[in-house]
Amino acid sequence: MASLADIGVSALINILSAFAFLLAFALLRLQPINDRVYFPKCYISGGRSSPRRSANFVAKFVNLNFKTYLTFLNWMPQAMKMSEAEIINHAGLDSAVFLRIYILGLKIFVPMTVVALLILIPVNVSSGTLFFLRKDLVVDDIDKLSISNVRPQSIRFFAHIALEYMFTIWTCYMLYKEYDYVATMRLHFLASQRRRVEQFTVVVRNVPRVPGHSISDTVDHFFQTNHPNHYLGHQAVYNANKFAKLVRRRDRLQNWLDYYQLKFERQPEKRPTVKQGFMGLGGERVDAIEYYKHQIKEFDKRMTLERQKIIKDSKSILPVAFVSFNSRWGAAVCAQTQQSKNPTLWLTNWAPEPRDVYWRNLAIPFVSLSIRKLVISLTVFALVFFYMIPIAFVQSLANLEGLERVAPFLRPVIELKFIKSFLQGFLPGLALKIFLYILPTVLLIMSKIEGHIALSTLERRAAAKYYYFMLVNVFLGSIVTGTAFQQLHAFLHQPPTQIPRNIGVSIPMKATFFITYIMVDGWAGIAGEILRLKPLVIFHLKNMFLVKTERDRERAMNPGSVDFKETLPSLQLYFLLGIVYAVVTPILLPFILVFFAFAYLVYRHQIINVYNQQYESVAAFWPHVHSRIIASLLISQLLLLGLLSTKKAANSTPLLVILPVLTLSFHKYCKSRFEPAFRKYPLEEAMEKDLLERTTEPDLNLKAYLADAYLHPIFQSFEVEEELVEIRVDKHQAHVASPSISEPSSPTPHHYTYQTSSPPHYTNDLASPPGCYRPPSPPHYVYHYQVEP
Amino acid sequence: MASLADIGVSALINILSAFAFLLAFALLRLQPINDRVYFPKCYISGGRSSPRRSANFVAKFVNLNFKTYLTFLNWMPQAMKMSEAEIINHAGLDSAVFLRIYILGLKIFVPMTVVALLILIPVNVSSGTLFFLRKDLVVDDIDKLSISNVRPQSIRFFAHIALEYMFTIWTCYMLYKEYDYVATMRLHFLASQRRRVEQFTVVVRNVPRVPGHSISDTVDHFFQTNHPNHYLGHQAVYNANKFAKLVRRRDRLQNWLDYYQLKFERQPEKRPTVKQGFMGLGGERVDAIEYYKHQIKEFDKRMTLERQKIIKDSKSILPVAFVSFNSRWGAAVCAQTQQSKNPTLWLTNWAPEPRDVYWRNLAIPFVSLSIRKLVISLTVFALVFFYMIPIAFVQSLANLEGLERVAPFLRPVIELKFIKSFLQGFLPGLALKIFLYILPTVLLIMSKIEGHIALSTLERRAAAKYYYFMLVNVFLGSIVTGTAFQQLHAFLHQPPTQIPRNIGVSIPMKATFFITYIMVDGWAGIAGEILRLKPLVIFHLKNMFLVKTERDRERAMNPGSVDFKETLPSLQLYFLLGIVYAVVTPILLPFILVFFAFAYLVYRHQIINVYNQQYESVAAFWPHVHSRIIASLLISQLLLLGLLSTKKAANSTPLLVILPVLTLSFHKYCKSRFEPAFRKYPLEEAMEKDLLERTTEPDLNLKAYLADAYLHPIFQSFEVEEELVEIRVDKHQAHVASPSISEPSSPTPHHYTYQTSSPPHYTNDLASPPGCYRPPSPPHYVYHYQVEP
Repeated sequence: MASLADIGVSALINILSAFAFLLAFALLRLQPINDRVYFPKCYISGGRSSPRRSANFVAKFVNLNFKTYLTFLNWMPQAMKMSEAEIINHAGLDSAVFLRIYILGLKIFVPMTVVALLILIPVNVSSGTLFFLRKDLVVDDIDKLSISNVRPQSIRFFAHIALEYMFTIWTCYMLYKEYDYVATMRLHFLASQRRRVEQFTVVVRNVPRVPGHSISDTVDHFFQTNHPNHYLGHQAVYNANKFAKLVRRRDRLQNWLDYYQLKFERQPEKRPTVKQGFMGLGGERVDAIEYYKHQIKEFDKRMTLERQKIIKDSKSILPVAFVSFNSRWGAAVCAQTQQSKNPTLWLTNWAPEPRDVYWRNLAIPFVSLSIRKLVISLTVFALVFFYMIPIAFVQSLANLEGLERVAPFLRPVIELKFIKSFLQGFLPGLALKIFLYILPTVLLIMSKIEGHIALSTLERRAAAKYYYFMLVNVFLGSIVTGTAFQQLHAFLHQPPTQIPRNIGVSIPMKATFFITYIMVDGWAGIAGEILRLKPLVIFHLKNMFLVKTERDRERAMNPGSVDFKETLPSLQLYFLLGIVYAVVTPILLPFILVFFAFAYLVYRHQIINVYNQQYESVAAFWPHVHSRIIASLLISQLLLLGLLSTKKAANSTPLLVILPVLTLSFHKYCKSRFEPAFRKYPLEEAMEKDLLERTTEPDLNLKAYLADAYLHPIFQSFEVEEELVEIRVDKHQAHVASPSISEPSSPTPHHYTYQTSSPPHYTNDLASPPGCYRPPSPPHYVYHYQVEP
Repeated sequence: MASLADIGVSALINILSAFAFLLAFALLRLQPINDRVYFPKCYISGGRSSPRRSANFVAKFVNLNFKTYLTFLNWMPQAMKMSEAEIINHAGLDSAVFLRIYILGLKIFVPMTVVALLILIPVNVSSGTLFFLRKDLVVDDIDKLSISNVRPQSIRFFAHIALEYMFTIWTCYMLYKEYDYVATMRLHFLASQRRRVEQFTVVVRNVPRVPGHSISDTVDHFFQTNHPNHYLGHQAVYNANKFAKLVRRRDRLQNWLDYYQLKFERQPEKRPTVKQGFMGLGGERVDAIEYYKHQIKEFDKRMTLERQKIIKDSKSILPVAFVSFNSRWGAAVCAQTQQSKNPTLWLTNWAPEPRDVYWRNLAIPFVSLSIRKLVISLTVFALVFFYMIPIAFVQSLANLEGLERVAPFLRPVIELKFIKSFLQGFLPGLALKIFLYILPTVLLIMSKIEGHIALSTLERRAAAKYYYFMLVNVFLGSIVTGTAFQQLHAFLHQPPTQIPRNIGVSIPMKATFFITYIMVDGWAGIAGEILRLKPLVIFHLKNMFLVKTERDRERAMNPGSVDFKETLPSLQLYFLLGIVYAVVTPILLPFILVFFAFAYLVYRHQIINVYNQQYESVAAFWPHVHSRIIASLLISQLLLLGLLSTKKAANSTPLLVILPVLTLSFHKYCKSRFEPAFRKYPLEEAMEKDLLERTTEPDLNLKAYLADAYLHPIFQSFEVEEELVEIRVDKHQAHVASPSISEPSSPTPHHYTYQTSSPPHYTNDLASPPGCYRPPSPPHYVYHYQVEP
């Protein structure tokens, strides 16, 4: 248990380390050599070119303009300059709403902090010291400011209960306003967007296999019958694993070709050569550029054949299709209704954005899906409660004796005393550290196994799992001593009313631990986030060893994105801590405030300059944020109830029982009021946009626009910069998108020509403001159609 | 605790009383005077005319044909004669599926009984006597046949666990087959039905009030914009409470008129007279027939005015409308999609059948709905757990002293010794008996307050509440001694793992109680059902005192209907008992079998001859039946787990843990596989029927067909047998259905003429088979449209 002075020391250390990180960041980001690490978003949106091009040799790597060092903290005001509308335009709605969570935290906790400190601290302190307490509760200074300092049966508990009511009402009010605002933002964003393919497209799963008919025929027939006025066409989904392998190998060849061409440019006097044999070790030495050009040509032929084989072979078509409609209304209707008499067939749902689709999961059949869900939920349960078992097992193996047995040559080193003690302290924790580091990835893989078909859904599901893990193992695990498994055992063998009591009574004692946690994980952790140490190191390593061409350097840049699956759960943990401790130990609140304010600044900077979102889910995560804050309220009410019942405050405690009921009904109301805006697409909205479009663009060729939007990305990543490839679009179906070598004598009715150019979709309609940012970049190689006369 | 002999005696008594009921029924039903009590369905479907018309005076009341008495049990084979298809045609799908529940019970329990008796009884009996048991468990003969007789730690528990697995798998298999069959029946029934108004109609709630526009205009504009190709028209809903009062008063006048006319016919020499004053007591004496004719004419004028006032006054239009579409497809789309950007406005849902609509609840606003639901669920919780408190209070008042104080003149009677002892035994139970008798009605009223808009939904919700009550107070309440409130207290203060243990250990001891319960409530109760004692008494009382005219007699008939809100929960209780005791005390199973077989026969007879269903929900209750049987399986598994854990069967018990997980996932699978068939209407189906209709009846005037289908019933019950009333249908909207006195000079474009005749809807398309039954009768006074040239 720490005294106030201890906390002060801890705060000093953490503030100093946070400042150290910030200073390092400020220095590093000014160096041109790090430019691609700290401003990748600007490169991607095209507003920034490398400062290293124009400068002399030294200035390429080190910033010699010392004036810039004087204003090293100026990223903060810079980060605040952009308005919300500009952020939406620059980084998408997901990022803008993500920043609003921090603002929401400030809005909720600033008045709460003021009120709690002004009212509760005097109430608690003046209530007498903790002399009368049993000796088994260790007393410290912080406890004198907390509810522990109030005598049992005191009338002062009415103050705590009144404040719990006030805080709940205030939080609910802010939540309501925020949900309303975010829902409006979402609808407005959807309404203001230009035409997007996913508005016209529905993904259909579990298409039945009718004997004697291909999947495509079945889909066509079904939708032509049941949506005769709206069905436009569909795009089949192919099982293309083999082709994907070819694409990867061709990419590698292309890379080598670039490399040798670059080398030849630099030293034009010597044509580079290469050995033909395995791994470039044996065989005849030939001209490298010619060799790779030849190899690529060969590969192109093989790929064309393979691709045609896939497209023609009916077995490689999965029972899934992206069905397009001629209006948003038609797609909205199809996505929201049941199609078939057998409800496990023809499952329709909104298609995710093309870049958001997780292709591998499209082939999972319905029966398998429910089994997968069951297995994964059991696994998550086991992971949350029993994760210590395998780790303890690994720890028992990974001791010094084991290490010596495996690597006897290390013995002299290990036997050195200080190394031995270091290893003995370090090794047992290593397994746990590795586990916690890979945990989000493991949870993401679990979500993938569950079978969701959009990357955004996968991240949200992984975030939910991580939240449960944190709730049990960080929050409850810190309050109730013992492993999660022991807690589970205790939960099962205690009366339900005893549980909040046991937890409630130890809550005030853990305040100092959580204050330290907030400073280490929150303050210093966020400062570490802005430093981007890992991407920095990896970028320079790659730059030194792997980067051969300019394209490689672009790839090594790795801007990353807001990592929702980790940030959302930890944010929600801070909300939980703040809400739980607001009444119990209000001195914790200022630390949370500092976290929210600082993290807001940092993420704002990162979103503007670094992150490049991979998809746009249009704030689909908000209902989860909302409901977890509501859950925090309920947890805090239950724990306060348990705490007060140990304080024998029989007069006042019953007043608290109504609060969870009210909170729950508020949640239900919000759910029915706002959640449909995040799950469904109202017909009113769809019709409005359809009508507008029909008047502004009466002769739009939607069929051509939608024709190849949902082609498997590997077919699109196939570079066809020079050659013109032709695509046949049948009269009634747009799904056989088979780019083949141009045959002018082909008898097909329409000819579309492929040309790599900027695609028509994924451009926002606001004009790009001046500065580093621009509308989100287009995906790399997308075909553009031009109708041949 | 009863021995086997005691059970035998109890069984004999109950079998005798059941036989007495059956005998009484057999005798009573043969008397012509009771014909309307025991064959009302035949009167309603028109296949039977009163046998009293043709006979002499004595034969009008007593059956003198002694031959018919010899075959007094022949209703049983008669009841079995009708096939399922005929029952569907005769009484609707609800009744046919209701009967299938009993068959399902037999299918599940017959093999279970055979296997359990053959395997478990030998295993239990041979396992040694109960000598080693602690003395606090009272031993009886039944217990020797039960699991209690098996020694702790015995290897024989593997037999019980294996059988629990077998029974669960068998039950799930039967449930799956049955769900599949019922879902197919439902879809087939819906598909084979002729055109029905509810297939084209969607009920819209929470229509926003736009200033300066009437509700009707708003609805028209919204649907013309958002469903331009499918919207046909709508019918506004009026707040017509005042008019309903007038209708009731006019009905009473009409009744008196009929009565005096009948009287005049019987005694043509004397014209009946009546006093004009209040209650017929004061005032001038006038000719009764003339007086009532005049009064009715006056009333008709007032009602016409009132009706026009309601229809013209925009304030009496509620923000609810029945919206009609020109195709089933259009209606299915509208019912399943979200309409407005604000998800609390324009809530669409399938319209119930016109006769199924609960009009009063249509006006409840959205916010009020969620509050109502919250309040009612709290009330139900309180009712289930604390219902004994008010009853105990009433009981404390209703003692002999209280009675003497209120009615001192009764003292001499009360003081008589045997009357005193009778009252002392009777009075305290009276409050409880009255409570249990009115409980289903109370629960129905609660469901009404919840705000459901269809009678079928109301009954299902009331059934759910009654099930919870039975589960806690009959099942758990009998096993765990003490009131429900004491149980709740114990549940909250026991560890969760202790609860199934405590219940499980007392389960075998309560077998005899439940056997007696099955005999009293099941066997004798069902025999009482066929006797229809209450309707019999009420009919004859009404016949003697109230019935003035033939119409009154028809009204006094009261055929009743299958009372789903009581029968479904008690059926589910029998399933629960059978499944729980199958492994624990298999000797209980034969009693359940007898119940299912006997109840099947009785209800089959009643459905054919007596009940007249008020609505057709097309087996909408099946998902509830299914999920409650699944819940019974889970309860039985948990309790067996608890029971075995007290038997220290550590080897075998863990095997059982997997079973609930498997059962739950089976339930989830069934839910996704079949439930949509009960909740949604697939577009495939809708399109099929639309196409069929378009080819068979290309020039159908749907607008006229739908024009007045959802007019408030009080507007329809207004008798217009003689007069021709005209209705205006505007060009674009069919909602202003204002029958006014015919004005030939009116400038409206179309004229429809009212004529009371059989309406076009509610006739099944199968030809009616010979015998007493016919297709379900039409509602009484529905207008029929004829287009005037």
